[in-house]
Amino acid sequence: MLGRVRTAVAQLVGGPGPAPAAQPPRDSPAPPRGPPAGGGFSRPAFLQLSAEELRRAGDHAGRAVQSPRETRRRLPWSTGYAEVINAGKSQHNEDQACCEVVLVDRRCSPRCNPAPKGCTGEAEGGRGGLCFHYWGLFDGHAGSGAAVMASKLLHLHISDQLRDLVDILQDSSPPPLCLPSDSRVLPAERNRAPLAEADAELPNDALPRFHLEKAVSCESLVIGAIENAFKRMDEQIEREQTTRLVAGGCCVLAVVYLLGKVYVANAGDSRAIIIRNGEIIPMSREFTPETERQRLQVLGFLRPELLGNEFTHLEFPRRIQHKELGKKMLYRDQNMNGWAYKRIEEDDLKFPLIYGEGKKARVMATIGVTRGLGDHDLKVYNSNIYIKPFLSCVPEVRVYDLTQYEHCPDDVLVLATDGLWDVTSDREVADVVTEVLMGYEPNDPCRYTMAACELVVRSRGVLKERGWRLANDKLGSGDDISVFVIPLGGPGNYT
Amino acid sequence: MLGRVRTAVAQLVGGPGPAPAAQPPRDSPAPPRGPPAGGGFSRPAFLQLSAEELRRAGDHAGRAVQSPRETRRRLPWSTGYAEVINAGKSQHNEDQACCEVVLVDRRCSPRCNPAPKGCTGEAEGGRGGLCFHYWGLFDGHAGSGAAVMASKLLHLHISDQLRDLVDILQDSSPPPLCLPSDSRVLPAERNRAPLAEADAELPNDALPRFHLEKAVSCESLVIGAIENAFKRMDEQIEREQTTRLVAGGCCVLAVVYLLGKVYVANAGDSRAIIIRNGEIIPMSREFTPETERQRLQVLGFLRPELLGNEFTHLEFPRRIQHKELGKKMLYRDQNMNGWAYKRIEEDDLKFPLIYGEGKKARVMATIGVTRGLGDHDLKVYNSNIYIKPFLSCVPEVRVYDLTQYEHCPDDVLVLATDGLWDVTSDREVADVVTEVLMGYEPNDPCRYTMAACELVVRSRGVLKERGWRLANDKLGSGDDISVFVIPLGGPGNYT
Repeated sequence: MLGRVRTAVAQLVGGPGPAPAAQPPRDSPAPPRGPPAGGGFSRPAFLQLSAEELRRAGDHAGRAVQSPRETRRRLPWSTGYAEVINAGKSQHNEDQACCEVVLVDRRCSPRCNPAPKGCTGEAEGGRGGLCFHYWGLFDGHAGSGAAVMASKLLHLHISDQLRDLVDILQDSSPPPLCLPSDSRVLPAERNRAPLAEADAELPNDALPRFHLEKAVSCESLVIGAIENAFKRMDEQIEREQTTRLVAGGCCVLAVVYLLGKVYVANAGDSRAIIIRNGEIIPMSREFTPETERQRLQVLGFLRPELLGNEFTHLEFPRRIQHKELGKKMLYRDQNMNGWAYKRIEEDDLKFPLIYGEGKKARVMATIGVTRGLGDHDLKVYNSNIYIKPFLSCVPEVRVYDLTQYEHCPDDVLVLATDGLWDVTSDREVADVVTEVLMGYEPNDPCRYTMAACELVVRSRGVLKERGWRLANDKLGSGDDISVFVIPLGGPGNYT
Repeated sequence: MLGRVRTAVAQLVGGPGPAPAAQPPRDSPAPPRGPPAGGGFSRPAFLQLSAEELRRAGDHAGRAVQSPRETRRRLPWSTGYAEVINAGKSQHNEDQACCEVVLVDRRCSPRCNPAPKGCTGEAEGGRGGLCFHYWGLFDGHAGSGAAVMASKLLHLHISDQLRDLVDILQDSSPPPLCLPSDSRVLPAERNRAPLAEADAELPNDALPRFHLEKAVSCESLVIGAIENAFKRMDEQIEREQTTRLVAGGCCVLAVVYLLGKVYVANAGDSRAIIIRNGEIIPMSREFTPETERQRLQVLGFLRPELLGNEFTHLEFPRRIQHKELGKKMLYRDQNMNGWAYKRIEEDDLKFPLIYGEGKKARVMATIGVTRGLGDHDLKVYNSNIYIKPFLSCVPEVRVYDLTQYEHCPDDVLVLATDGLWDVTSDREVADVVTEVLMGYEPNDPCRYTMAACELVVRSRGVLKERGWRLANDKLGSGDDISVFVIPLGGPGNYT
């Protein structure tokens, strides 16, 4: 099943130019070719940056905002996009982005194209295929390798996971609980699928019924497909990381539009909000040591060997000093939401698994996000303790039904990495978007990119004597910033 | 610290009469005296039932509704209460209830009295004590022992946990993170508490500050105290269960009113709602195999030995038959919210850890609730697999600030066991309560008991030829039903 993804990996090269059509042997793993470091580093293909533009985009001093040129190919649905590099905290812009329309075909390889003709996101009955629209933001850390790789491949993994579901999702009846062993279900076979071959000749109403059967919706299947695609992507990065060519990890915020519904999958601290008639609808939550405290503590409690005798799964409000042994200190264990006092014992002097507050909260004093892809080789400094078992690659998927509401051209879905949200609130984002969109005709396709640019500029700020400053003179975001502004009036209204 | 609770255990006898003042040796466990089975079974003390009334309350055929008599002592805040026994599913009414005003005194044993004079729930400065109001519902299963024991003791464990906090909660400054080793903090010592003795002579503003300190609220301390009280209660039941005298387990819904806030602690499938100006505010959620699927699956995944080679941590929408090996079946693992297909392997033929839907959902085919007290000896039928590791004794605590809203006499907090909620919706409960209360003067203290009785009668139904039937002829609840209706206008308005 991974053959197609392997092919794509093999075709991965750093730059935005055409990829050589490498063909790995069918039954052996693909040659481990992650994007080469350094010179091979790229920005999203849809930006179509020239070498000179690429150089300029990487200038930490100028921090020029990048967005798709109006004179070039337009993104699906006239999606707006803008990005800016960090103020120097890492050599590269470690954010990556992807925007694709993907045709899932159960007969042959997925074809992937920014905007294939005639593909509106609805099923294409005659050909048996299924189209989905896809937007992804990837916020890398400790290197750009994992983010680059995931930005090139995650949608192919999603496509792979959806391949078995092409017919099932397009059928009006509920998904069969069980499929025959060849995994292909033709519509006529559907009602018989849960039954053993021996029963196949009985008339439908005489079939024995299982006492307990849980109904599963098509929506749940798409959620499951996205969740498993993240897992497969993470496993692939793990395989590549053994060769040391794919560095670091990345948070992922991915959006799939399929059969009328928008699926927002988040693993990390990026954020998605819908702005509808001025109202803000949160479409994700952040996964950090604080929000995932209990999941992490439970794992440390049940598998203490993962803490390497260096950390305690208990949470304390500050570090304990040796001379405080015997005193009583506030603590929380893995099944508490409140706090209580406990007498300090020797074991409590270990470093807390979760420590710090807000942006400074860390797992094992090392990492500030708790979901994402990669990081397989990440260890606690100066130790052999791996962080990865505490990180989850599984996204939380929220669903928004586009058909339940008549959207106007000003209704948008905003996706952005934490570089934006660290300095700009949901309300400020909504106000800026609304303000910019009002300045353009509703049918002007460039208005969404203008909104994205304005969001990036306002969050980056302006370079003054004391660094990048916002309009209110507070510090601007020194992080990489990437933003999609996706109009919800489409599909149909926009292409 | 448990000495006082041990004394109370020793004093426990089945009936509502005065208890002998047994005194266990100070440093040895209390004599294991759970309430004797059979004749010693009792109903809540505040009902003050005579022997004849007790017999009548246990009549499964008549199912007479029990409530506090107006001619007897009134419950605090004029709380309304009513209960009815099941239609024959168990010998006893396995629900229990408790309503107390508890004085937490840091100097001596907690004194416990249904309505001590002059105790309004506010701190009593001069004496250094702290008062809390308490209501508890206990829905037993597989015997009444755990429910009876918890109903007599849980509030004493809460009191014990609050004992260290008497001064801290009454002080306006935030709680100290660290206490001196004798655990007594006098107000004057408060600011110095987090510091080592060596620093104690420095002036306050010259003290070294810890780089990172998390602020913890008084509210969190009360939540932590309630959580830990549940754990201590569960440990005590475990000790008692080794003697086989305390049978079964129980769901617990407990409410603590302390210093202006209502803390609703739920462990099980009872439910609490606030009805305020006709609006419904949920104050709890149910803990069942379905709502706690992922917590249970994670435990089964991380500690597979707990599944005894009989169960799989994967969820399937129905049982798999042996002849389906090799086919693809829908499944969910511990980190999925969606569903996907997997090829059926030998291991998947094991029974699913979580199985069934709604009221029929079970953990290991055995139990339908996933939080509560007791059940330490509960095993999977015909096996040596214990259920207890999968059950949690820790409640979820929600807080409602009574001072944030001006409550009218019709605003109430309704607590009830699942016998009520199985047949009556939140909305119906709110409508019945509002309707009954309107029939009485706002200052008539019996109106809350009338509302509780009406809720019980409507959920039990009327005995007809085809069993207990509701007004709409649907089946009434055959379960034990217990209901508190607590007016929120108090304290002060009611005593």
